[in-house]
Amino acid sequence: MHLDLSRSAAELTAQLVDMESVSGNEQPLADAIASALADVAHLRMHRDGNAIVARTDFGRAERVVLAGHIDTVPVNDNLPSRREDGLLFGCGSCDMKSGVAVQLRLAARLASAVRDVTYVFYDCEEVEAERNGLLRLSRHRPDLLAGDFAVLLEPSGAVVEGGCQGTLRADITARGERAHSARSWLGSNAIHSAAGILDVLRSYEPRQPVVDGLSYHEGLNAVGIRGGVAGNVIPDECVVSVNFRFAPDRTPDHAADHVRSVFDGFEVRVTDVAGGARPGLAQPAAASFVAAMGGQPRAKLGWTDVARFDALGIPAVNYGPGDPQLAHTRHEHVPVAQIEDCEQRMLAWLATA
Amino acid sequence: MHLDLSRSAAELTAQLVDMESVSGNEQPLADAIASALADVAHLRMHRDGNAIVARTDFGRAERVVLAGHIDTVPVNDNLPSRREDGLLFGCGSCDMKSGVAVQLRLAARLASAVRDVTYVFYDCEEVEAERNGLLRLSRHRPDLLAGDFAVLLEPSGAVVEGGCQGTLRADITARGERAHSARSWLGSNAIHSAAGILDVLRSYEPRQPVVDGLSYHEGLNAVGIRGGVAGNVIPDECVVSVNFRFAPDRTPDHAADHVRSVFDGFEVRVTDVAGGARPGLAQPAAASFVAAMGGQPRAKLGWTDVARFDALGIPAVNYGPGDPQLAHTRHEHVPVAQIEDCEQRMLAWLATA
Repeated sequence: MHLDLSRSAAELTAQLVDMESVSGNEQPLADAIASALADVAHLRMHRDGNAIVARTDFGRAERVVLAGHIDTVPVNDNLPSRREDGLLFGCGSCDMKSGVAVQLRLAARLASAVRDVTYVFYDCEEVEAERNGLLRLSRHRPDLLAGDFAVLLEPSGAVVEGGCQGTLRADITARGERAHSARSWLGSNAIHSAAGILDVLRSYEPRQPVVDGLSYHEGLNAVGIRGGVAGNVIPDECVVSVNFRFAPDRTPDHAADHVRSVFDGFEVRVTDVAGGARPGLAQPAAASFVAAMGGQPRAKLGWTDVARFDALGIPAVNYGPGDPQLAHTRHEHVPVAQIEDCEQRMLAWLATA
Repeated sequence: MHLDLSRSAAELTAQLVDMESVSGNEQPLADAIASALADVAHLRMHRDGNAIVARTDFGRAERVVLAGHIDTVPVNDNLPSRREDGLLFGCGSCDMKSGVAVQLRLAARLASAVRDVTYVFYDCEEVEAERNGLLRLSRHRPDLLAGDFAVLLEPSGAVVEGGCQGTLRADITARGERAHSARSWLGSNAIHSAAGILDVLRSYEPRQPVVDGLSYHEGLNAVGIRGGVAGNVIPDECVVSVNFRFAPDRTPDHAADHVRSVFDGFEVRVTDVAGGARPGLAQPAAASFVAAMGGQPRAKLGWTDVARFDALGIPAVNYGPGDPQLAHTRHEHVPVAQIEDCEQRMLAWLATA
């Protein structure tokens, strides 16, 4: 499928949304992006799996990285895209194909600028950290990600969002004893015991701490549950997979200790953890971007790859079209005017001193 | 693998246990049984899938059906078999390869008898009713199952067990609303809501009614649970599969109504139901068998195919080696002496007037 980068950012977003790219299935979209940008004379192209990197070489003193993931969560009866009352609906419209459309438009239009720009399009952001395309790039080709400042075009309602919360996944296991279900009283039902795990989750009171002046909001939730041996066997194991979103004043180790203590009495196995990032908006590069975009910065609640740039020593913020509260919902959408506005503001910032 | 029917019933049981035959994987064992009985001159052999039927043709007035299933529940770190202090341990040792060994020994040894005998070995008893090999036989070749009386050699502690409880499976569903797990308060977590289903199960008080003089014991248990969309999505659905074991004074319809009323407020979908059988020990054929085996009959708690014979109009009881309370447990075992004792008592009853 051919991407026409001369169309408006909103039209381009609709086209991107209609190219289904659930995590693990990004290749057709990655191919289309690589092909569309290959025609742009001022870009040098690189590819690593389904991650595409396009870099300008204007010879400027400062280099900015604009990054976005091209995968989405599973489709939820929300394709193809549709436009209604100035809103564009569809899987990934908000998180984050509108941001990717802005990146693509800037990449095609900015044949010259006061800053050099690195455009990064990557895969597998919506799944476990180990599959993340930006992580893979940072291992294979850290030189391609080098820069003075990074903007992640995750949905932020076109407001600069600083820092991000960490995310931890753990399997909490209840155990029992198998028996024939016709004589259940001779065994111990692990699924019934898992009610104790769900009770902890239902009564959990999340913190809402202020970190470096921005307000965060934690959360602890079941994201999966499984148990059962056969239809006539009392099950001896039930596993609840939980996701803990933690504010950037906790380290990953602190977060893991907290989860273990909350589920005291059950087996806890941490399967995946990614630390957050403190806001860091006082750093000069971030402060300049914030001033140019205007508005009052706020805390980023969702984990984003700003944490990964932070780990690489590159200051980074989130800034993109779309309400982050709509991400991963069936009715996710993005205001068409906000896509165009983001494109114009970033174009002006990149092109002028 | 070759089954040597001249070995003792206990040795034969060990050999059968060591031939893994979890439901759906019975073919090697069915082949071995068919091959071993093909050498026995006084038997006429029939096969339907992995069910084997061997019939004598002594020309007697009365025909007895001896039936047993050759499948087991999933192996639970309990193979190969081992013998210790007069007990034989291993997956299926109790439920019901010791009974199958008795059938095989009788089939090989009884070259003449006062009763004609039909030996039935069938597949898929431990899974959903629709896959049951005896049900399939009753549809394809009901003539092969005809008889005046049936004995199912399910484990009964070598005591005649009358009737059986019914079994019903249902999926109970809790629903919610998806959201990004970084902003969980915008959604509704279906797994957390499923705690309400588990609370019902934990507090359920099962009946223990007396039916036709025998005491039954009901039970309602989760046998499976599943839920979850992705590691960063608040799930909108959680399904608990339950198994209701009901006394034979309830019909299947009555049992389904009961389950629906217990889970009032949740979606309930009945997926599988098999009615029980009242004891019926007053019938002449059953009374004669009970008198010959001795002991005090008791209620059968587990669902067995006596219900299927009951539906075919053939009086049937359960009688076999092994403690039924050990069926489906990791430590299931059978007393070696009980296997031999069952074989001797049944041999005597079949051979003499």
